[in-house]
Amino acid sequence: MPAPPQFIKYVDDNANGFIQRLAKAVQIPSVSGDASYRKHVFEMATFLEGELQAVGAQVKRVPLGKQVLDGQEIDLPPALLASIGNDPKKKTILCYGHYDVQPALKSDGWDTEPFQLVVNEKTGQLIGRGSTDDKGPVLGWINILEAHKKLGLELPVNLKFCFEGMEESGSEGLDDLIKSEVGKGKFFDGVEAICISDNYWLNTRTPCLTYGLRGISYYNVTIRGPAKDLHSGAFGRTVHEPMTDLIHIMSRLVTPQGKILIPGVEDLVAPLVTGEKERYDALDYSIQDVEAAVGAPIALSDDKATVLMGRMREPSLSLHGIEGAFSAAGAKTVIPAKVSGKFSIRLVPNQTPDNIDPLVISYIQSEFKKLGSKNTLIIENLHGGKPWMADPTHWNYVAATKATEAIYNKKPDLTREGGSIPVTLTFAESLGVNVLLLPMGRGDDGAHSFNEKLDRSNYIEGTKLLGTYLYEVGSI
Amino acid sequence: MPAPPQFIKYVDDNANGFIQRLAKAVQIPSVSGDASYRKHVFEMATFLEGELQAVGAQVKRVPLGKQVLDGQEIDLPPALLASIGNDPKKKTILCYGHYDVQPALKSDGWDTEPFQLVVNEKTGQLIGRGSTDDKGPVLGWINILEAHKKLGLELPVNLKFCFEGMEESGSEGLDDLIKSEVGKGKFFDGVEAICISDNYWLNTRTPCLTYGLRGISYYNVTIRGPAKDLHSGAFGRTVHEPMTDLIHIMSRLVTPQGKILIPGVEDLVAPLVTGEKERYDALDYSIQDVEAAVGAPIALSDDKATVLMGRMREPSLSLHGIEGAFSAAGAKTVIPAKVSGKFSIRLVPNQTPDNIDPLVISYIQSEFKKLGSKNTLIIENLHGGKPWMADPTHWNYVAATKATEAIYNKKPDLTREGGSIPVTLTFAESLGVNVLLLPMGRGDDGAHSFNEKLDRSNYIEGTKLLGTYLYEVGSI
Repeated sequence: MPAPPQFIKYVDDNANGFIQRLAKAVQIPSVSGDASYRKHVFEMATFLEGELQAVGAQVKRVPLGKQVLDGQEIDLPPALLASIGNDPKKKTILCYGHYDVQPALKSDGWDTEPFQLVVNEKTGQLIGRGSTDDKGPVLGWINILEAHKKLGLELPVNLKFCFEGMEESGSEGLDDLIKSEVGKGKFFDGVEAICISDNYWLNTRTPCLTYGLRGISYYNVTIRGPAKDLHSGAFGRTVHEPMTDLIHIMSRLVTPQGKILIPGVEDLVAPLVTGEKERYDALDYSIQDVEAAVGAPIALSDDKATVLMGRMREPSLSLHGIEGAFSAAGAKTVIPAKVSGKFSIRLVPNQTPDNIDPLVISYIQSEFKKLGSKNTLIIENLHGGKPWMADPTHWNYVAATKATEAIYNKKPDLTREGGSIPVTLTFAESLGVNVLLLPMGRGDDGAHSFNEKLDRSNYIEGTKLLGTYLYEVGSI
Repeated sequence: MPAPPQFIKYVDDNANGFIQRLAKAVQIPSVSGDASYRKHVFEMATFLEGELQAVGAQVKRVPLGKQVLDGQEIDLPPALLASIGNDPKKKTILCYGHYDVQPALKSDGWDTEPFQLVVNEKTGQLIGRGSTDDKGPVLGWINILEAHKKLGLELPVNLKFCFEGMEESGSEGLDDLIKSEVGKGKFFDGVEAICISDNYWLNTRTPCLTYGLRGISYYNVTIRGPAKDLHSGAFGRTVHEPMTDLIHIMSRLVTPQGKILIPGVEDLVAPLVTGEKERYDALDYSIQDVEAAVGAPIALSDDKATVLMGRMREPSLSLHGIEGAFSAAGAKTVIPAKVSGKFSIRLVPNQTPDNIDPLVISYIQSEFKKLGSKNTLIIENLHGGKPWMADPTHWNYVAATKATEAIYNKKPDLTREGGSIPVTLTFAESLGVNVLLLPMGRGDDGAHSFNEKLDRSNYIEGTKLLGTYLYEVGSI
């Protein structure tokens, strides 16, 4: 059953109000990864709590304890557990989203103030930190509730919401909460399927449903040498330099073509089954799409399926940077005393942090040994999460497919994503129900980068899509 | 002729006043490499000008023009050209020093505020940025002039001083000034030898005279890929990652044992002559010294001469860091869009930036080609300077040897240094006279690191040494 026409009309008629709502949310710099911004994460929780209550939801604000960040012990942002409707004849859907954002400074390269939503009338873009990740999608649900309240329409399903404020910082505290709210009479009792709107279309044209995510295992490789930084004039070619050791180790992790050099890691990847490559060929995607998204002709292959499989069904190893080395502009002649290389591996079935960890650690130890250095090596796993896959033939996906066809007149692409949303797996495993990723934004939104945006049409049509999805679920 | 006893006594009696003078100088954070500190570099010039005038020197403050730093055009700090005495019967000595310092933040690892001189009564250390590099030695000359003025003693030589405020930032502007002041009637006219006190003993026990310095060639290798930073989940194994390319290139520059891998670079090193290794064996130095200085058992070899030759007569290549990559604490999952690896090569005869440059550039270009990457490579030489060697049998060295024996009761080690003081070469080539490096501080002073210090005894005995050197020159 498609959504009633008055709902669709309400969304169109109230688009500017919805954008105002998003502007208010973007204005709150709810950066979870920086202790000095923590008060704004709380402010954002309060804003969202108020919005939910105003449209008729019952909201429980759940404290998640404390964490140590930037050397201080501070309160974790609360989870908001909200619900509306409790009709035993209706299906019950859980919607997850997050109200925290990545850090952003204008000096990172933004053309506009990151925490002021800028509406570009020419391009139709809504530009600001959190616009697409994940404030736009979260407010999409609020917009739907507003429409139903104002129109006096009954919701087609019972809804529960779980909104957190730590997604960009490892969802600290959330796993425990989820596990504690599973069971008879608990908050998640009765949830029959889950919808998460926190990822993106593959391209800029075709909506998608996502049934897989890569996991991650993040490493910190530290080489410690002298007791303090040294002058390269006085000590160059006198002592073992930690940077030299570290760079040698980092160079042995991955080839410029993306092949992971750690023995055994790629052997754990589930083999390609017959017809699987063809499914990637069928997706609405081209090498031009990836190159447009990154702004440079640097795709690893000219073969579309190869590039897509690299992102969706193969592990990747990225070198993120080095802590402790000279990183500023200019020409400092330092031998850094202690340097930490950061890299992560995106995991796919059948890899897990548990089966990857020993391979990574023993390989790095053995490569370090080969260097013949007198420096000291320390390897840490900073965080990890397993990959996730769902059954894309489940009614949850059928409903989302129908909703997409109704709103966009297109069959959605069925995709797996390269990123990790660890909570997806926690929900799937803890609640034992199907999880659907139903994105609102486009592949070029720049979620973790500067000039993050959500297209106006994606916000407005996306609100319709999420609403229509609920109607399709309600009529299954 | 040794210095008169009343001079030696004056220095001992006025040690506390000299330390107060150093404390005033350290308090001025004259960091030349940061535009926001530039006013303090000027403040330091004014302080030093006042000190020079107070002890009877005539001072000319010479503006050196402008530079672009941190995106702004700012005035270069002035050079101070000072002189005292003009007796045609006396020798004329030029003393060079610098009044700018390296950057320092307490958070770099300092135990005390870097810009407040802390006198540790237990260890006898004077701790603070610039204490040994190079404010202590510069004030040593002032202390000598003060003693002579107060005692009514005649100076044994005519003195000229050239103090600059850009040494830690490539001595910008100074070369032109030196060249313009050479010739009949110009400032440097009549200078017969030069003394520079801006390096360190090899160890913590034995004074040294230094007759050679390595040169330097500093490179910035940039790899540019996507138009903006990417999320490693969304794009890992999809595009060529600049960090992967850069790390591969940086790993091919030098081995963990310090051997430079760029073909041809080591071939330019002057071959070891008969008996040369034995000279290094004879220096008062041990592997324990280097390991004590760096605070860890990480010497490249167990053979003393090998380690000394690595520092003094062989080139070294140090990897300093990467600009543009993730460099903070934590676990950010970014694919940096543009990364710049910084490394420098310390040069020895017969290497020069001019003969090294093409080797470095063509090697990196060819290694980059081998990577098969679609990213873009840019190589820049940020700055360079030739190595320098002087004749250690010149009367300038003979005078310094006698002075050292008089003050320290020891024959000084004759050393070459691993660092670069490019102005040394400019003075040697432009004035055509012998240059002597006569250090005040010890090998463990930590000049460019945190907790930089100058031992009280080195400051006070060093003041006597520089004064006595002038008397020995005067009686040659």
